[in-house]
Amino acid sequence: MGEPIETIEGWYALHDFRRIDWNRWQALSPGERAAARDELSAILEEYQSVKADDGSFALASILGHKADLLFLHFRPDPKTLGELELRLDRSPMGPVLSRPYSYVSMVELSKYLARGISEDQIHTTLKRRLEPAIPDAQYLCFYPMNKRRQGQDNWYMTSRDERRELMKNHGVIGHKYHEQVIQIITGSQGLDDWEWGVTLFADSPLPIKKLIYEMRFDEASARFADFGPFYVGPRIDATTLLARFS
Amino acid sequence: MGEPIETIEGWYALHDFRRIDWNRWQALSPGERAAARDELSAILEEYQSVKADDGSFALASILGHKADLLFLHFRPDPKTLGELELRLDRSPMGPVLSRPYSYVSMVELSKYLARGISEDQIHTTLKRRLEPAIPDAQYLCFYPMNKRRQGQDNWYMTSRDERRELMKNHGVIGHKYHEQVIQIITGSQGLDDWEWGVTLFADSPLPIKKLIYEMRFDEASARFADFGPFYVGPRIDATTLLARFS
Amino acid sequence: MGEPIETIEGWYALHDFRRIDWNRWQALSPGERAAARDELSAILEEYQSVKADDGSFALASILGHKADLLFLHFRPDPKTLGELELRLDRSPMGPVLSRPYSYVSMVELSKYLARGISEDQIHTTLKRRLEPAIPDAQYLCFYPMNKRRQGQDNWYMTSRDERRELMKNHGVIGHKYHEQVIQIITGSQGLDDWEWGVTLFADSPLPIKKLIYEMRFDEASARFADFGPFYVGPRIDATTLLARFS
Amino acid sequence: MGEPIETIEGWYALHDFRRIDWNRWQALSPGERAAARDELSAILEEYQSVKADDGSFALASILGHKADLLFLHFRPDPKTLGELELRLDRSPMGPVLSRPYSYVSMVELSKYLARGISEDQIHTTLKRRLEPAIPDAQYLCFYPMNKRRQGQDNWYMTSRDERRELMKNHGVIGHKYHEQVIQIITGSQGLDDWEWGVTLFADSPLPIKKLIYEMRFDEASARFADFGPFYVGPRIDATTLLARFS
Amino acid sequence: MGEPIETIEGWYALHDFRRIDWNRWQALSPGERAAARDELSAILEEYQSVKADDGSFALASILGHKADLLFLHFRPDPKTLGELELRLDRSPMGPVLSRPYSYVSMVELSKYLARGISEDQIHTTLKRRLEPAIPDAQYLCFYPMNKRRQGQDNWYMTSRDERRELMKNHGVIGHKYHEQVIQIITGSQGLDDWEWGVTLFADSPLPIKKLIYEMRFDEASARFADFGPFYVGPRIDATTLLARFS
Repeated sequence: MGEPIETIEGWYALHDFRRIDWNRWQALSPGERAAARDELSAILEEYQSVKADDGSFALASILGHKADLLFLHFRPDPKTLGELELRLDRSPMGPVLSRPYSYVSMVELSKYLARGISEDQIHTTLKRRLEPAIPDAQYLCFYPMNKRRQGQDNWYMTSRDERRELMKNHGVIGHKYHEQVIQIITGSQGLDDWEWGVTLFADSPLPIKKLIYEMRFDEASARFADFGPFYVGPRIDATTLLARFS
Repeated sequence: MGEPIETIEGWYALHDFRRIDWNRWQALSPGERAAARDELSAILEEYQSVKADDGSFALASILGHKADLLFLHFRPDPKTLGELELRLDRSPMGPVLSRPYSYVSMVELSKYLARGISEDQIHTTLKRRLEPAIPDAQYLCFYPMNKRRQGQDNWYMTSRDERRELMKNHGVIGHKYHEQVIQIITGSQGLDDWEWGVTLFADSPLPIKKLIYEMRFDEASARFADFGPFYVGPRIDATTLLARFS
Repeated sequence: MGEPIETIEGWYALHDFRRIDWNRWQALSPGERAAARDELSAILEEYQSVKADDGSFALASILGHKADLLFLHFRPDPKTLGELELRLDRSPMGPVLSRPYSYVSMVELSKYLARGISEDQIHTTLKRRLEPAIPDAQYLCFYPMNKRRQGQDNWYMTSRDERRELMKNHGVIGHKYHEQVIQIITGSQGLDDWEWGVTLFADSPLPIKKLIYEMRFDEASARFADFGPFYVGPRIDATTLLARFS
Repeated sequence: MGEPIETIEGWYALHDFRRIDWNRWQALSPGERAAARDELSAILEEYQSVKADDGSFALASILGHKADLLFLHFRPDPKTLGELELRLDRSPMGPVLSRPYSYVSMVELSKYLARGISEDQIHTTLKRRLEPAIPDAQYLCFYPMNKRRQGQDNWYMTSRDERRELMKNHGVIGHKYHEQVIQIITGSQGLDDWEWGVTLFADSPLPIKKLIYEMRFDEASARFADFGPFYVGPRIDATTLLARFS
Repeated sequence: MGEPIETIEGWYALHDFRRIDWNRWQALSPGERAAARDELSAILEEYQSVKADDGSFALASILGHKADLLFLHFRPDPKTLGELELRLDRSPMGPVLSRPYSYVSMVELSKYLARGISEDQIHTTLKRRLEPAIPDAQYLCFYPMNKRRQGQDNWYMTSRDERRELMKNHGVIGHKYHEQVIQIITGSQGLDDWEWGVTLFADSPLPIKKLIYEMRFDEASARFADFGPFYVGPRIDATTLLARFS
């Protein structure tokens, strides 16, 4: 039998990617546009007004065709995530903001590097990591990933010690960039199509690129990581988003 | 020649996933909306009114962009499944509820762990598992899966004894979570694109995530399982669904 | 050089899968609906009126979202298949019946199990298999498949004797189910995206499921078969189809 | 370093596959339909009127849902291909003829079998193959393909002599069918998503099927070929196409 | 731990591919068409007017169905790329120019071949390569690619010396074509779905094809390269594009 590593879970996360359907927008009458914009403004205010103990929210503009926007929510109750998503869908702006992608996951810490600490201690110490505020950084990057199970490169068939060693080296590279890049790891086994989501925050895409490139040479990534789509773009505020619809 | 394991089949299952097309909904007139809502209400009542001997039904709200709703039906006659699906499609709400995914399968028990029991005994004992009522739990998770046939990791080329041993270990993990997670396994060889469907019921997504993560370290999953898309969300009642269209 | 096995070809086959676009249907006026239904009725009559020597036709209702209907045609001339498909597309019902999938192939018998018989003898004896009437059964299942060419599991690099042996075992399982499941194998090398199509007929999906599951343990499938999408559903008659549009 | 084989290139090719959107067609007024048909007629005349030294053109009807039509152009200047495609897109029939697939490539001859011949000699001798007229045959088949680079089966890591030997055997099978099937090989490295396109011409799909099946047992295909989608159908003339829109 | 090679990054790049939706274009009124064309003209002028120190821009017409146009931007600030894309989307021509593909990356030079040079020196010497003007060439080709991590063929598990040697041979082939083909390599780890983008410029697609074919026999490509979609077509000027909408 395998040797699973225990994980500690925090808030649930919904990465709600949206694409702006400009054809639908242009088909609205001036009155419908004003109503849609006003309602979007109210929704953004609601999203942003979540108190630090109840959740957190970030808005980003995504570069390229895969999406135009990301509404990123962290909340303790998964039901809330569904309501937040529905709030936008049902609004007059709903049909304009189609959903090309999304990701459902939970903030996750693994105990690879934390043996001998009790769960209680961990929860106290790590509350800020398990129930994260959105880091204050100008850019955001998201991608999902799996640990590979392929012939000789099967992460889940390696021993716990080997995995711990690999993750330690992995962490060394992460630490090298820790002043430039902040990461939130979310687990999604049973929740979405990949095993983890990775959300990175930095003041420029450049250190994100350098971090990910450097990590790819690390055995934990080189032999064992499979990556899904990458989404990157600048954080924006509500005013900037609303101005797109003026 | 291979050594197939016998399976025992129960009711047919249709996982009927739907996405709400808010653009189409908003294009309906007030009168059309009222008529669509009334008819949806009648359909939900029909779905739910199935007697325990004739089938079972569950409704869930799915998180993220892959689907918005799941209508889950178990019935003894596959023709009925087609009629239930058509009933919704042909209704005024049909065009609003597009179908991004579905899954056709049959409740399946394997005899790996039940040697020496006659099929009659099994059917009596296991009738409740073969013709399942929907477990009383707040969340539902569905994913399809295959047993891998890839180089050295070919499930169907291993001996029956090896498979039995692997499934036994697999069951031990499942048992560990049996108070938190109830599963219904459905087989879909010849019926849909993967070999099995797994439907999990729990009062929170968290034990589902923990169960699936832990199982991934088990050799039966680590070496032999390939997973399709994961769908997760809270169970909802008809009133909650209808309120979305108010 | 390889050792191909000779094949004997019969009629051409078109599996013409359709999805009903209920939005388009509901957008038609009552008069347009009546006209579309009448024309569909006429087309179905034409399809069904083909004489036993000139071809055969079956209509099925497909379960799940992948398709709603299958129009299955066998004809000696491939041009006729194109005309049959176009006949439906150009009709008023054409835009309502979108085409999510199709399969172009030819009835194919291989000589693995028929050495020493002349082609003439084969054609006389096997005319009924090469120019098949539609079996009288309540359910139909279709899937395409390839023989794998992957590392050590390369069907086309095994010797003819090995392949014959594997196909013989494969046939033994098929024979076990021959009273419950009738199969029509069609080859599609050069005609469509997989190498073969398999169309199964039975009075219930259950023996289809059991047959395919059992075969998967057979080396010919376990090591060498890759499967495409599976479509399954009950046969229906024209009246039943037309009633959907009433 | 590898041992590339030199190639000789001729005309550029555009395989322009189209699907008829019958919904859009039926939405046109009688006057718009007449205008669209007239313009399509003019375009087909232009396509067909290309002089033998300036290019060649074929029209085919494709079986199944993947496409309805193929407009096949060979031209010396790639810019012309873009103009031919745009000519159709901008016409009133453009929105009716959506583009599900296309292929951009160049007629290519390899020197595997032509050592010791100078490029000049080749161009004189092979001008008819490099600047091909469309063979006079009733059916056409197109598919793209790659040479595999996978573990032990890596075409580009084998020696030039091994490749020459494999291609020679491959050619022997091709020669066996040379009275029934004419092929035009086009290379697409750097031009489209696969490495080659294969366009086959024959008076029936049957010899195409038999040729491709037999070749699959040849090591050059069995170990080294990966195939894309297959498109097949009868050649048609302009009158036949225009009649679809009457 | 791995031995990453340092990279030097220059400007950000957005490959903004567009498809012309002729149905939407034809649905516009004459007045709307004139307004859309005028605004597109103004946008193109803005794109082209970028000063050499602030960025560069190219426009190309793409052959085949995958895209019709490429708007290629290089800029020092990634935010600008988002604004350039949005400028087009929000314009009246936005809904006509759908986005089938895009690529987000950064000009990247690797130090495989530049040991012992300081970063300062590199930046001075290589400023023209890091902040590239668009080469003066008639054709453009774009494709994304990965270095493979597959069993024995895992680029990121080879030693730095082995990689340097492989890249050197790779460079030799590139050099052979340097008078005919100019390349701009952009890195996209963390920015888009592949690891690199390759943009090639030449006066004909032919040397591009020959270069890519020859490189495929080189071990760096043969064993280690995975390629995404290829886009190719002639450069065009604003007048030519605007004329499509006359």
